[in-house]
Amino acid sequence: MNAEIITIGDEILIGQIIDSNSAFIAKELNNIGVSIVQITSTSDTEQAIINSIKSAETRAEIIIMTGGLGPTKDDITKHTIAKYFDTELVFNQDVYNHVKELLSSRGISMNELNSKQAYLPKNCKVLFNKVGTASGMLFNQNGKTYISMPGVPFEMKYIIKEGVVPYIKNNFVTEEIIHKTILTQGIPESHLAKTIENWENNLPKELKLAYLPQPGIVRLRLSTKGKDRAKLISIIDNEAVKLNKIIPDAIFGYNEEKIEEVIYALLKKQNKTLSTAESCTGGYISSLITSIPGSSAIFKGSVVAYSNEIKTKILNVSDKTIEAYGAVSKGVVEEMSKGLLKLFNTDFVISVSGIAGPDGGTPEKPVGTTWICVATKDKTISEKHLLGEDRERNIRRATLVALNMLRTNFLKKSLTP
Amino acid sequence: MNAEIITIGDEILIGQIIDSNSAFIAKELNNIGVSIVQITSTSDTEQAIINSIKSAETRAEIIIMTGGLGPTKDDITKHTIAKYFDTELVFNQDVYNHVKELLSSRGISMNELNSKQAYLPKNCKVLFNKVGTASGMLFNQNGKTYISMPGVPFEMKYIIKEGVVPYIKNNFVTEEIIHKTILTQGIPESHLAKTIENWENNLPKELKLAYLPQPGIVRLRLSTKGKDRAKLISIIDNEAVKLNKIIPDAIFGYNEEKIEEVIYALLKKQNKTLSTAESCTGGYISSLITSIPGSSAIFKGSVVAYSNEIKTKILNVSDKTIEAYGAVSKGVVEEMSKGLLKLFNTDFVISVSGIAGPDGGTPEKPVGTTWICVATKDKTISEKHLLGEDRERNIRRATLVALNMLRTNFLKKSLTP
Repeated sequence: MNAEIITIGDEILIGQIIDSNSAFIAKELNNIGVSIVQITSTSDTEQAIINSIKSAETRAEIIIMTGGLGPTKDDITKHTIAKYFDTELVFNQDVYNHVKELLSSRGISMNELNSKQAYLPKNCKVLFNKVGTASGMLFNQNGKTYISMPGVPFEMKYIIKEGVVPYIKNNFVTEEIIHKTILTQGIPESHLAKTIENWENNLPKELKLAYLPQPGIVRLRLSTKGKDRAKLISIIDNEAVKLNKIIPDAIFGYNEEKIEEVIYALLKKQNKTLSTAESCTGGYISSLITSIPGSSAIFKGSVVAYSNEIKTKILNVSDKTIEAYGAVSKGVVEEMSKGLLKLFNTDFVISVSGIAGPDGGTPEKPVGTTWICVATKDKTISEKHLLGEDRERNIRRATLVALNMLRTNFLKKSLTP
Repeated sequence: MNAEIITIGDEILIGQIIDSNSAFIAKELNNIGVSIVQITSTSDTEQAIINSIKSAETRAEIIIMTGGLGPTKDDITKHTIAKYFDTELVFNQDVYNHVKELLSSRGISMNELNSKQAYLPKNCKVLFNKVGTASGMLFNQNGKTYISMPGVPFEMKYIIKEGVVPYIKNNFVTEEIIHKTILTQGIPESHLAKTIENWENNLPKELKLAYLPQPGIVRLRLSTKGKDRAKLISIIDNEAVKLNKIIPDAIFGYNEEKIEEVIYALLKKQNKTLSTAESCTGGYISSLITSIPGSSAIFKGSVVAYSNEIKTKILNVSDKTIEAYGAVSKGVVEEMSKGLLKLFNTDFVISVSGIAGPDGGTPEKPVGTTWICVATKDKTISEKHLLGEDRERNIRRATLVALNMLRTNFLKKSLTP
């Protein structure tokens, strides 16, 4: 079963927003055996919308559109679709009541633009939007299924989960699509490819392998499809097990796992706590960890010591160490860890000090130079890393390396509180 | 002048990665007067790539592809394009030397897969990739221009800036495309539309208006195109000035400005400093501010007090206040501010304590309840906000509200250190 996604809106074509809706929709449909053959972003003009629909009809059985359903004048999707299907807009009392209630719960009164949202094409199945004012719509015409949803991610997600996925599951027989992604770090892509060459050449024919590099990480995705879900999973898992024997240290997780989730799970399981002292990462490590629901069980907090004054005053780093070796040095990150352990009394601490850039580099310590320390009361492990020249990437990579240092040392038991 | 973007790779169609490349490319090309007519994401099979190219040829004069140029077997774009243009791959000594040098600077030895990257289509102009091993390629055939670049964002960006943009500027006469986006907060979209209805109805015909809502923010984008850049800018600016008279308090910035950049610029100009005490935002405010180059001039740091113990121990919040009113209360955020001012000695402080969810809510304090305090030594302003039910959005919205509270009170001089 094939589907195509059409995202409607000039804001995508001029690069003002990044289309994150398509990835969400693709993932949800993949889970129920629907393959996406193409994603098309098109302009919010009648002609462009209709051309995109007609083109999609040549490739897909299900055509999913997002965008252009808002209350304002620039939103034309609803009228365009009604015209394309030669139908009229009719008043829907349930939708009217819902819009009124939703606005009232937010202390907003209903105006004429809001009222218009209760007018929907006569021949559509309404996909109820509990969390917003623009309804989703589903049409069955010409042997194809057409779905239109608002572009606001929060609302689109609700309609996909509550409306679209149940509808497809109930109305179509679909094939199983199985992916497994193996997350690796520490081996550059081309070397990883050579290291696992034999394994790759001997993969069963029905499996497809893709390399997906990111800063500091290479993801390996195995994909297959067919009828027998259990069998497909077992074929993929079998290959993942083989791979794990070839590069056991490099693999830190699977599929959508994030490194901060891996850390959270490891610490939670053993009832251990963490705190961070951050200079160049500026609270980014802390914000990743606290993005996880329930993270307060393992995380006590952080000191973002962005100035030397805070390093000395709160973390008790000595002025002499800073003077002698600079703020980006082994001595300073180790004293940051020591001070933090005393203040926060956690099992583990992470401290980072580096030159994120673009300014602040010297010939001896170029932009990207970063000291990272992981420690317990009894042991301190520090590493110097030379990251790149880009500020954003340096913050991200320093965070990744720091969390990986904690993970590997924790697992090897070289760091036990 | 029209262009179409084709992103190649199953990782986009299965939703594993979000296509952020297209937005970057679209923005860069818009700046030099090239409109994007469509963005197409397609599978990495020969047939899908060729079909997408042929379809794009019916709409655009420039066809820009990303993805599928890596050293591994799943990358087939280079061979597919060579076949489509009926040309062969030839060895390029300059590219070979560059790849070897680049790998060596990262301590990686050259292997056979890397060597293959020096083979490029005979009739292409090579777009040099200083920051990676996969070269960009440019072809002029059938009266159209075709460009192929690696999908790694960092490398694609380099090639766009150093290769593609200069090439288009030198070889094509283009029209001017002008956008201005007005950033507003505090007025829901449908009410904003009613408030500015007269202004919208009286916009010059050649201007297009779009509403772009985000959590807590509505962006208004004015667009136009033509030959006379200065005249177009003046028409748009004129309308922006009119709008500013209708909703002066709601407008916090323009175009790509971020609220953290607005805060940075305000404080920098008056030589003031800031620190934050964060509970539910977990360091997110701090990480936004420190994402700005040079932020150390205005930002001293942060205490992420994720546990009550840290609130009392480091920020000197009294146990009694927490017992009497709970950690999410006016009393607690005000004591956090007081403690932070003493520790960090900055001109301004921001303190946040809330229930981000999904757990921790009660009937009196449901998930989303958030207390936010901005303060100086002499004055403390606290507000309670009821945000939503989604953890990620609550963290983001609490941060936005906190930074906006600082901004508006700073501008109104109701908070002067």
